[in-house]
Amino acid sequence: MEKIKMILDCDTGHDDAIALMVAARHPAIELLGVTVVAGNQTLDKTLPNTLKVCQAVGIDCPVFGGMSLPLVRDQITAGSVHGESGLDGPVFPPLTRRAEPGHAVEFLIRTLLASEGDITLVPVGPLTNIAAAMRLAPQILPKIRQIVLMGGAYGLGNTTPAAEFNLFADPEAAHIVFSSGVPLVMMGLDLTNQTVCTMDIIERMEALGNRAGKLFGEIMRFTFKTQQEVNGLAAGPVHDVTCVAWLVAPELFTLREARVEIDLSHGPCYGRTVCDFVLRDGKKPNCRVGITLDRARFWDLVAETLARYE
Amino acid sequence: MEKIKMILDCDTGHDDAIALMVAARHPAIELLGVTVVAGNQTLDKTLPNTLKVCQAVGIDCPVFGGMSLPLVRDQITAGSVHGESGLDGPVFPPLTRRAEPGHAVEFLIRTLLASEGDITLVPVGPLTNIAAAMRLAPQILPKIRQIVLMGGAYGLGNTTPAAEFNLFADPEAAHIVFSSGVPLVMMGLDLTNQTVCTMDIIERMEALGNRAGKLFGEIMRFTFKTQQEVNGLAAGPVHDVTCVAWLVAPELFTLREARVEIDLSHGPCYGRTVCDFVLRDGKKPNCRVGITLDRARFWDLVAETLARYE
Amino acid sequence: MEKIKMILDCDTGHDDAIALMVAARHPAIELLGVTVVAGNQTLDKTLPNTLKVCQAVGIDCPVFGGMSLPLVRDQITAGSVHGESGLDGPVFPPLTRRAEPGHAVEFLIRTLLASEGDITLVPVGPLTNIAAAMRLAPQILPKIRQIVLMGGAYGLGNTTPAAEFNLFADPEAAHIVFSSGVPLVMMGLDLTNQTVCTMDIIERMEALGNRAGKLFGEIMRFTFKTQQEVNGLAAGPVHDVTCVAWLVAPELFTLREARVEIDLSHGPCYGRTVCDFVLRDGKKPNCRVGITLDRARFWDLVAETLARYE
Amino acid sequence: MEKIKMILDCDTGHDDAIALMVAARHPAIELLGVTVVAGNQTLDKTLPNTLKVCQAVGIDCPVFGGMSLPLVRDQITAGSVHGESGLDGPVFPPLTRRAEPGHAVEFLIRTLLASEGDITLVPVGPLTNIAAAMRLAPQILPKIRQIVLMGGAYGLGNTTPAAEFNLFADPEAAHIVFSSGVPLVMMGLDLTNQTVCTMDIIERMEALGNRAGKLFGEIMRFTFKTQQEVNGLAAGPVHDVTCVAWLVAPELFTLREARVEIDLSHGPCYGRTVCDFVLRDGKKPNCRVGITLDRARFWDLVAETLARYE
Repeated sequence: MEKIKMILDCDTGHDDAIALMVAARHPAIELLGVTVVAGNQTLDKTLPNTLKVCQAVGIDCPVFGGMSLPLVRDQITAGSVHGESGLDGPVFPPLTRRAEPGHAVEFLIRTLLASEGDITLVPVGPLTNIAAAMRLAPQILPKIRQIVLMGGAYGLGNTTPAAEFNLFADPEAAHIVFSSGVPLVMMGLDLTNQTVCTMDIIERMEALGNRAGKLFGEIMRFTFKTQQEVNGLAAGPVHDVTCVAWLVAPELFTLREARVEIDLSHGPCYGRTVCDFVLRDGKKPNCRVGITLDRARFWDLVAETLARYE
Repeated sequence: MEKIKMILDCDTGHDDAIALMVAARHPAIELLGVTVVAGNQTLDKTLPNTLKVCQAVGIDCPVFGGMSLPLVRDQITAGSVHGESGLDGPVFPPLTRRAEPGHAVEFLIRTLLASEGDITLVPVGPLTNIAAAMRLAPQILPKIRQIVLMGGAYGLGNTTPAAEFNLFADPEAAHIVFSSGVPLVMMGLDLTNQTVCTMDIIERMEALGNRAGKLFGEIMRFTFKTQQEVNGLAAGPVHDVTCVAWLVAPELFTLREARVEIDLSHGPCYGRTVCDFVLRDGKKPNCRVGITLDRARFWDLVAETLARYE
Repeated sequence: MEKIKMILDCDTGHDDAIALMVAARHPAIELLGVTVVAGNQTLDKTLPNTLKVCQAVGIDCPVFGGMSLPLVRDQITAGSVHGESGLDGPVFPPLTRRAEPGHAVEFLIRTLLASEGDITLVPVGPLTNIAAAMRLAPQILPKIRQIVLMGGAYGLGNTTPAAEFNLFADPEAAHIVFSSGVPLVMMGLDLTNQTVCTMDIIERMEALGNRAGKLFGEIMRFTFKTQQEVNGLAAGPVHDVTCVAWLVAPELFTLREARVEIDLSHGPCYGRTVCDFVLRDGKKPNCRVGITLDRARFWDLVAETLARYE
Repeated sequence: MEKIKMILDCDTGHDDAIALMVAARHPAIELLGVTVVAGNQTLDKTLPNTLKVCQAVGIDCPVFGGMSLPLVRDQITAGSVHGESGLDGPVFPPLTRRAEPGHAVEFLIRTLLASEGDITLVPVGPLTNIAAAMRLAPQILPKIRQIVLMGGAYGLGNTTPAAEFNLFADPEAAHIVFSSGVPLVMMGLDLTNQTVCTMDIIERMEALGNRAGKLFGEIMRFTFKTQQEVNGLAAGPVHDVTCVAWLVAPELFTLREARVEIDLSHGPCYGRTVCDFVLRDGKKPNCRVGITLDRARFWDLVAETLARYE
């Protein structure tokens, strides 16, 4: 069976790190590269964080630094959730792994143009890199097979009452992606909050006994604590992992078609993913939105993939 | 026990009619008057509809016509839900009952100023009458005991993906009410959709054998049909009745404190009740928002009250 | 010749006071009443200010207090221009003149409905009273002969770079008036700033030797000073007087047709009168906008009218 | 004397062509390159137009194609002013001149980073190229000596009543440039409309007898006609030329400091350059805005420069 070619675009970040570990080792995925963007923290933190994870568990695909600022708006970060470093919790050895030369946006454009239209983009941070590539080189649009993104919510947001962090961090970039005509799958908070990583799951991964399981434990024990303190959740969700899981096991999810519009007004709903599921008056959907998840089989999939690490 | 003094402000409408019947006959309520506003239909329909219901079941409290247009925005109505008349379904005898002379807004101002601060306002349509009274006579604000309103949603809207009908029909009026400092209870779609009036309930009310039960049946059989067709619901909810029920039986409900802001931008979330339940950084709540309802006891309450009609 | 029936709606204010003196004594005008609104200062100051001017020079038409708050937005005042009292400068004797009972908005509605459609409204403050009347009683619209208002600008604003004070103080009310379909004349800053009242004009009015000339001097000597200090103008303009002058001597003015839209976004142009003079694609004008003024003859008209006071 | 190093960023266009001819041959300017953007027409027209002008009069500096779409908003063009080709009027021989390989945005970033901070950017179209470079590589900001741009208006716009074409075509890009902290000079319509190119000027340039004078005539005779028809002006202005003229002869201009904010709301003032000249409350200016121009000496400068062509 042919592997699914994908590029992961991330702002590592706790759940980004898990998503990266799953994407890099799942047998059905060919991870062509990792592009990094500012988001959970500034780029001078998210890029080293990504490289540290790669070095820690032995992921050798190319990593590129990308946009250090949102497309238009002022920068925000999520220090209260991910800590000062953007990946507080694990202690990493000195970083020797290096990013590739060149800009992530150039890598995206070059790789897509050279492809046969069979590459899936998986952005799990603000959509700045993807949107910048689309505007610098609109000719990539027909070359993108699909975009499976983590972001948004049709219920309540987590950064404002209306908006989720990735979307609120760059609403203008999101608007470009959601109006691009490229097939989209959106995993918003309504779905990703169903992945809560309780202590039994942390212990299950640690019991794998390998580097990936150990790193999972260090990461999610930190998240376990902060999500209880900051968001009042029972435990930490692994939002970003849902995108990778859906790619290889869509049968674990239910999705619903919607017309998703990004609120670009500068009012209290700035950055909201306004999801129209009713589609009156002949409105056309532009997205499939994640609704439910089979939580048990989702965690099985993660465990089986992490078990493949040495 | 002292009765709860209330004024019902409505845009009759199917569920408005049920709310009116319950408010007018519940033994714990003293219904001081009914003020009518444009909403589900234009005022030249909602005012006669209100009078027809009063005449049909023998409600004799004073009825006043109010604002025929929203405070600022262009008028919308909900003809697709409530039909051309705004109360399609029942066939009423020729209307002999008359509205009181004078404007509903003047009645509100006069009555509140003459009161001892013990009157609850129950607006179940667009908030135009209430907001106009507040701006024409700001001195009424400390005279309002509380406002228990039907409108808004913290989840999906029903008129746009972001906004519920009553709020979308007059967002500026809602902004005035929600920023007024008056104690507020908001019964939004998230709660009111829990009242679905299934066929067994319709039959139970009809079995009361009185005029109120008969009118209930004629009204809700129409709603039963349109809600299935228009909104894809299992049956019609009776949104407006929840406000009256909460007044006399708050123990049937759970509420949650929130800071509710109305989106006045003219983007895709115009008219949304942006509900902040997290209240970070010392934000103060301005509203209690309905979350859950004991559906069985709610319908018992309605049935017991309607049974009091001849 | 039949007199021009007008109602002056003002937020007295320095230039309002002059406009009132001219309107009350010009032989071609029948001043039916004065309605007062919050604006330059709060209503508890603008109403007494109006009565003081009436008392000082012997104007006996009825005066009504109106809206004390803007229709929707938070209140602003112009204390830096008009001083703490809203009419700093003149010293008035103790106030014995009283306002009429009842609300200005009711007076407007009652008077217009009873009229033959021959009344001109001259609002020279925020448009709150006029807009409230239009929404409480839309049936007055065909009864209004025309509205000649002071407010707005097609060039730079004076309260924000985009907006003039009267408009910025109540943009939503302005939107209602400008979209009402009633014939409109707008005297904006571009025109009204042409009326600068230099010292020779002040001395000319004082030389009239009557109470009106004396009051004019006290008022405009204060404005002369503050306009130099606050706005860097050569002297103070008498914005509001232009509306009254145009009514009786339109030949002193040039006007241009425009489609005027009020910016209701909450961005940097909130409250701007967006004036479209080009009217492409069949756009219809809704207003005539003042462009130029014959300054010498304008001041002659003011002097001749004030000379009629005892 | 050291030459002024500049990069011209244009969307050729009639007045762009004149600006290019002046910039390329003025003895005080070293034109490092020309970057082309979509604007007056789509990039597949503005890029060839630029090359045609270079070929026609023998300009040999490098030319790069840039952004073909605005940063965020939907694309608009100005076909009604510049014609179907974007440079209707002149008839050019077959195009042999080629653009450089690589993207204009990369050229801007590479050139600025390699510079000693002595390069002036002169964008006379939508600000998309400049903004994209600033966001892809924020480290260029301290390398830009200044930006002298054509766009905006503090009076009336020409594309909407509030906005000038270049700004309206990409308001988000303009926001990035105006909030960048780079020293800015803005030549808006208020100034550039003072350059009207009357028939005597056209004839004066044609009398130069060289290729540049001939091309000037072909271009401005077309503009002469369309500006009369479309905008009702006496003749066509050469907006873009003012930026180049100011660089070499600032004594011909008066400028005024302002805080310029771009309206990013989606209301009727979207894309307006909101110019605050009053700077109350310690507001800091971010721009010098062109106010007046010595028209006679401006045209002398153009004539003397064009005379230097063979």
